[in-house]
Amino acid sequence: MADKVNVCIVGSGNWGSAIAKIVGANAAALPEFEERVTMFVYEELIDGKKLTEIINETHENVKYLKGHKLPPNVVAVPDLVEAAKNADILIFVVPHQFIPNFCKQLLGKIKPNAIAISLIKGFDKAEGGGIDLISHIITRHLKIPCAVLMGANLANEVAEGNFCETTIGCTDKKYGKVLRDLFQANHFRVVVVDDADAVEVCGALKNIVACGAGFVDGLKLGDNTKAAVIRLGLMEMIRFVDVFYPGSKLSTFFESCGVADLITTCYGGRNRRVSEAFVTSGKTIEELEKEMLNGQKLQGPPTAEEVNYMLKNKGLEDKFPLFTAIHKICTNQLKPNDLIDCIRNHPEHMDTSIMPSPKL
Amino acid sequence: MADKVNVCIVGSGNWGSAIAKIVGANAAALPEFEERVTMFVYEELIDGKKLTEIINETHENVKYLKGHKLPPNVVAVPDLVEAAKNADILIFVVPHQFIPNFCKQLLGKIKPNAIAISLIKGFDKAEGGGIDLISHIITRHLKIPCAVLMGANLANEVAEGNFCETTIGCTDKKYGKVLRDLFQANHFRVVVVDDADAVEVCGALKNIVACGAGFVDGLKLGDNTKAAVIRLGLMEMIRFVDVFYPGSKLSTFFESCGVADLITTCYGGRNRRVSEAFVTSGKTIEELEKEMLNGQKLQGPPTAEEVNYMLKNKGLEDKFPLFTAIHKICTNQLKPNDLIDCIRNHPEHMDTSIMPSPKL
Repeated sequence: MADKVNVCIVGSGNWGSAIAKIVGANAAALPEFEERVTMFVYEELIDGKKLTEIINETHENVKYLKGHKLPPNVVAVPDLVEAAKNADILIFVVPHQFIPNFCKQLLGKIKPNAIAISLIKGFDKAEGGGIDLISHIITRHLKIPCAVLMGANLANEVAEGNFCETTIGCTDKKYGKVLRDLFQANHFRVVVVDDADAVEVCGALKNIVACGAGFVDGLKLGDNTKAAVIRLGLMEMIRFVDVFYPGSKLSTFFESCGVADLITTCYGGRNRRVSEAFVTSGKTIEELEKEMLNGQKLQGPPTAEEVNYMLKNKGLEDKFPLFTAIHKICTNQLKPNDLIDCIRNHPEHMDTSIMPSPKL
Repeated sequence: MADKVNVCIVGSGNWGSAIAKIVGANAAALPEFEERVTMFVYEELIDGKKLTEIINETHENVKYLKGHKLPPNVVAVPDLVEAAKNADILIFVVPHQFIPNFCKQLLGKIKPNAIAISLIKGFDKAEGGGIDLISHIITRHLKIPCAVLMGANLANEVAEGNFCETTIGCTDKKYGKVLRDLFQANHFRVVVVDDADAVEVCGALKNIVACGAGFVDGLKLGDNTKAAVIRLGLMEMIRFVDVFYPGSKLSTFFESCGVADLITTCYGGRNRRVSEAFVTSGKTIEELEKEMLNGQKLQGPPTAEEVNYMLKNKGLEDKFPLFTAIHKICTNQLKPNDLIDCIRNHPEHMDTSIMPSPKL
């Protein structure tokens, strides 16, 4: 990397702006970083004025993170290539559907030894079905390594400076320190693990489990049942990673990206909320998205569908009865009431030798 | 064991009565068990009538589990030795302070090859300070093996037949099957692990973490912070077991006794609730116990105290900053506001090589 590490944030939504507060402050404070941080901002007009101009003059992203000052060294740039061309570290934090097109624009225009880190939760749909990790798409298109950052990190709470933790998954250990330095703050505690795929997969699968937790809430089955569904969901997350991204570590699921983010999503979170309403209202997911989310799409149901595609392909549906049941409930192949009957004979209850049980 | 396995339930409170529904039904249905199950009931008068007589005539524990029928083969017995003398399996489910005295009464009066299983959550205070596991006390006094059963199992929900999971910790594998047969039901799913101490320790330490979760709720720090405190609590639970009960497995903490029970306790549960009020009201724990719990004692604060004694003894307070801070807040050595500053530099954030990270 260069003498001073140049950083570009690709994205300026709610989460991108919240993380810009931390990244900007660290770039200004730490000698290893170039102070000026570029932030690619999709240009739009706010009351007739360009959003990039507003940000660069007032240091506030009035559209996506109102009420918070960004550090003045974070510079909004409306041109993607211009923002990214000098970066040693590219932070991707945009809706995942933009990634392929952004990568096409950036290919050949960025430093060849740059690295990327994705803060994007959720999978992309692979061609032909199944899932594609966002970090893999970035690496495939740009031919640079891509780490990930995931955790129990609601953007507004991070922006407020409330204490939380996050997990960086970074396969190549030599980038661990610089990434930690870039994101760590007094209120934002970073743990780096080398299990990047597991970290990223957790960030998507948790939304499936949250649908199950929402169904349990809607069915009013109580705290014990909800805890059991969340736990079995965690077990299926671990097993899924073991099957499709082998070589991961059990300890990664104890990180913020695992158990902490799962808990938050299953107690708060829109997937839980809409799934509860799915049971109590009898409406379809699509109807509820319109009513409750202003037409925005939930991540749980499509993730459940892609995951189901992969499980079916491998003949593994019966090893993942919770994921399978949630998918079938979302698509009206099963009633919410059927959920519990699907998991009574969960592999976790039938075979104690499934999970390898390494000693502490 | 005998041809037909005789079972005695020592205890008839809320949890004892709920489990009697399952155990009684299994004893009646499965040929390996003697149908008649004795239940030691501390005799008391309800509207002038003996509780044992009420239970044996109406099959309802009107005092501790009103509205639920016990199986008719569960027979209430007011004499402890009489209830226990023929048992091959003794199920202990009484407040832990009764255990030493009960064991004294039973010593020499029970079958020498009987086994015990403790459903009692919480530690006893060891002589001279520190903690003593209930299962260890039973084994020491009665000189018989003692398994444990713990999980996210609120008694009333179990009695209702709502789906849940539980964990049996049983060091000697040869007892695993009979214990599972005795407790497993269609709505009560049992996983047996051989890590008995870890299972039991989880059932007590979770109450410390729940106090921390309650403080965060009282301080209104939000979902991210609460998830971080719960996760760091889980990490300290794992580390505590590793230090004081070495040889345990990481996977045990993913069982119902671990992550599931912890979640339930940190979102519902009295320790969380009173700790939240501790912050918002400014009253002492003792005052709140009187007001909110009718004078009943919380388990979190005394457990935190005993655990702190052990940590201090080993010079390990700084390796357990969350447990230590919670103890100090409960005892007014720190303000609730100090909690987060105590965990900003948690060992989990400073040293990524602490946790052994076995591959899946």
